[in-house]
Amino acid sequence: MVVTVWGENVHERRDQSVAAIYPDGMHETIAAGLRDLLGEDADVRTATLDQPDQGLGPDVLGSTDVLTWWGHAAHDQVSDELVARVCARVSAGMGLLALHSAHYSKVFRTLMGTTCALRWRNDGLRELVWTVAPGHPIAEGVPEVFAIPRQEMYGEFFDVPPPEALVFISSFEGGEVFRSGCCYTRGRGRVFYFSPGDQEYPVYHQPEVRRVLANAARWARPRGPIAATPYVALRSEAGWFEG
Amino acid sequence: MVVTVWGENVHERRDQSVAAIYPDGMHETIAAGLRDLLGEDADVRTATLDQPDQGLGPDVLGSTDVLTWWGHAAHDQVSDELVARVCARVSAGMGLLALHSAHYSKVFRTLMGTTCALRWRNDGLRELVWTVAPGHPIAEGVPEVFAIPRQEMYGEFFDVPPPEALVFISSFEGGEVFRSGCCYTRGRGRVFYFSPGDQEYPVYHQPEVRRVLANAARWARPRGPIAATPYVALRSEAGWFEG
Amino acid sequence: MVVTVWGENVHERRDQSVAAIYPDGMHETIAAGLRDLLGEDADVRTATLDQPDQGLGPDVLGSTDVLTWWGHAAHDQVSDELVARVCARVSAGMGLLALHSAHYSKVFRTLMGTTCALRWRNDGLRELVWTVAPGHPIAEGVPEVFAIPRQEMYGEFFDVPPPEALVFISSFEGGEVFRSGCCYTRGRGRVFYFSPGDQEYPVYHQPEVRRVLANAARWARPRGPIAATPYVALRSEAGWFEG
Amino acid sequence: MVVTVWGENVHERRDQSVAAIYPDGMHETIAAGLRDLLGEDADVRTATLDQPDQGLGPDVLGSTDVLTWWGHAAHDQVSDELVARVCARVSAGMGLLALHSAHYSKVFRTLMGTTCALRWRNDGLRELVWTVAPGHPIAEGVPEVFAIPRQEMYGEFFDVPPPEALVFISSFEGGEVFRSGCCYTRGRGRVFYFSPGDQEYPVYHQPEVRRVLANAARWARPRGPIAATPYVALRSEAGWFEG
Repeated sequence: MVVTVWGENVHERRDQSVAAIYPDGMHETIAAGLRDLLGEDADVRTATLDQPDQGLGPDVLGSTDVLTWWGHAAHDQVSDELVARVCARVSAGMGLLALHSAHYSKVFRTLMGTTCALRWRNDGLRELVWTVAPGHPIAEGVPEVFAIPRQEMYGEFFDVPPPEALVFISSFEGGEVFRSGCCYTRGRGRVFYFSPGDQEYPVYHQPEVRRVLANAARWARPRGPIAATPYVALRSEAGWFEG
Repeated sequence: MVVTVWGENVHERRDQSVAAIYPDGMHETIAAGLRDLLGEDADVRTATLDQPDQGLGPDVLGSTDVLTWWGHAAHDQVSDELVARVCARVSAGMGLLALHSAHYSKVFRTLMGTTCALRWRNDGLRELVWTVAPGHPIAEGVPEVFAIPRQEMYGEFFDVPPPEALVFISSFEGGEVFRSGCCYTRGRGRVFYFSPGDQEYPVYHQPEVRRVLANAARWARPRGPIAATPYVALRSEAGWFEG
Repeated sequence: MVVTVWGENVHERRDQSVAAIYPDGMHETIAAGLRDLLGEDADVRTATLDQPDQGLGPDVLGSTDVLTWWGHAAHDQVSDELVARVCARVSAGMGLLALHSAHYSKVFRTLMGTTCALRWRNDGLRELVWTVAPGHPIAEGVPEVFAIPRQEMYGEFFDVPPPEALVFISSFEGGEVFRSGCCYTRGRGRVFYFSPGDQEYPVYHQPEVRRVLANAARWARPRGPIAATPYVALRSEAGWFEG
Repeated sequence: MVVTVWGENVHERRDQSVAAIYPDGMHETIAAGLRDLLGEDADVRTATLDQPDQGLGPDVLGSTDVLTWWGHAAHDQVSDELVARVCARVSAGMGLLALHSAHYSKVFRTLMGTTCALRWRNDGLRELVWTVAPGHPIAEGVPEVFAIPRQEMYGEFFDVPPPEALVFISSFEGGEVFRSGCCYTRGRGRVFYFSPGDQEYPVYHQPEVRRVLANAARWARPRGPIAATPYVALRSEAGWFEG
């Protein structure tokens, strides 16, 4: 499968603190983790907002099986035309991994149909990620609990539709909780939201996080060819299915 | 609770066949059924597309607890501004009953995040509605199965997110099936989609259908005051909850 | 509706520390909370293990609409015959509220089909209960978060089927999380598991907890007459539904 | 993975009509389909009720990753001890495919916690199987709809917990509907119920059915080592996870 790791790539070039953690950009670190763990099963490439067509021209998007999305500072700069194309491709079967602050991306909000708002506080305290679906493919090889030593707090109420499968719940040192690993179906496509990953902390270097993303890419891959055009209401002939 | 029955009111004025079934408009028949069954529990009023503010000005919408929506021929005429206000109010806690061809309304599609496309064929054959969640409040007093003698066929694949609760499944004389009663949560609001109700047949006069709609209005009513402004991501202080 | 509050009533008579909190037994405190909040909507009575028929003879159980169950030290003493009768009545439409250590009761385990095991530690630290389904009837009037000052820790992995609706998630001072408010359907009956309520702490005196239980009783009430005999596989005649 | 195809093997030896369709037993036909489609990914073997330890002694069961179960005439002959061992292994991670009349097997009923009763009528009319989750792994390569020319009718209400994912819905020539492909999680294990497969018709020879079973075996395979002992409530030390 072809995985495209899309990164906004703004913080990494603007904030020295972020560049120190992700000198080649967060997208390259995410991509490296996927390459290590998926090996020959995946062709992993990156794309960024500053590229032509915001990194996802028809050729790139049209050959992507699973798209990962990290954005934060530039949600508004993503064109509505691109949002529509990404959502249409998810509907047609492409997998989508929405990461951390992508909860507020236009793409994720459009697919969810909710505000996707949440509580937050960035004081760099510990997050614990608990596995609540140990038999789920996304939890394969992930410990029952793992710690992210320093991370931004994301807390409930998280305004998303109830996930079809809830794989992880996080707690924070302040006592907050968060549904941090949420599975959805939209059309023929599968969507996974995973909340760890603030740019100020080396979350995507962490082995457990890399494992979750690799598992999620496998889980989200299309289960058949991706249609070129969206599904539309279709007049059926009686008995067309009887061949 | 205040229930507002919104009707597009196009077919009823344009098509003699529809006016014969619904001389006062489909919305008045739907409203009459709700009034009969909800009695003093509900203040039921109607609103139509041809009214000022498309029937749902801020005062009307802002005092609605449960909104029912029937549209078909004029989906495109509903203003994006109204769609945004309706979706925001659902998010804040208003209940929504989306009826029949409202599967393709802007409001429902926005809340679902999918195409909401389906198969269809209008040859007026029999639909059977089977209850598959007999303990659900929307099924209270509804028989295990009931027939709609003549109805348009709506068939799978119906491109909606998997319902959080599936209350009814229909079969059609041609052999098709359809998830005809689907429950969702969006924000603090509850959404119920019910597929029977093509304008060419007297579906909303049928007692079982009236029972389903009354039950659904009760199920969807807000469980607390409806916020005036949408939920937004909010910075929390540590320990704010410890009062 | 008739609510029967069943209590094991062992700790209250054996342990001075528990008797000090619940001098009339936990069941009486739970019942008093339900009476206060449900008022004329419910006839609330209690039953205990030490009574004839373990408190739930055919007349008592057969007239119960919603049963609440608290047990801990004496799970094994509950007769298999009673377990079978309780489960059969849930299947037929009775609501069940399983409280705290009832996660390990024979009744709850039989209905879930899983071990219902969990992590625990009783060091009397703070539990925070977060509402993650603010539009759900069981959350009506419940704050976004509330604290239980001292409580036993119950932690994930909690081996239950994924709840059909997850209403509350708790965090504990030690960093653990728990799905503390879980909704299920079994047959025509509705089951709600709510984890706060260790006998060593005055949890059932707390207003937020009383509110949750009253809401849950309303949510779980039967939606039609409760059948006297269990549902069995039934040979159908073709077209029986066309009457 | 190791797949064990368990068959009751009663009808095949007793009824000429069944033996004519399945001369080596239904289990051998099911196993052959899995071998063809899973190839080197699976070691597929069979086991039957008439063998020592009812075919599933500790060595056989203890090395099984996915178990398929077909039973009908001899549900009561399956020992409670075997039922307990099968359920414990599902809880520990083994996948289970429950086929057709296995809806009424002790194993499936125990895992579901419901009666698993349904409506039925065996008049050999046509079943149509509709895919309602086209992006689900179990639907990979399965057409939007396929016909089983002659089959026993299974109809709603089917008394199972609402499936976590509903992949197929069937209609029958008589107008009945049935949730024919249902996914569940029990402990670390995954359970798939698939209803087509009455012994009187050559259902397991049909390519679409073979495809569904092979997909389901992949979907249900364990996602980690299967524990030898069941999960039990475990006292945790504070901070044990901070290692």
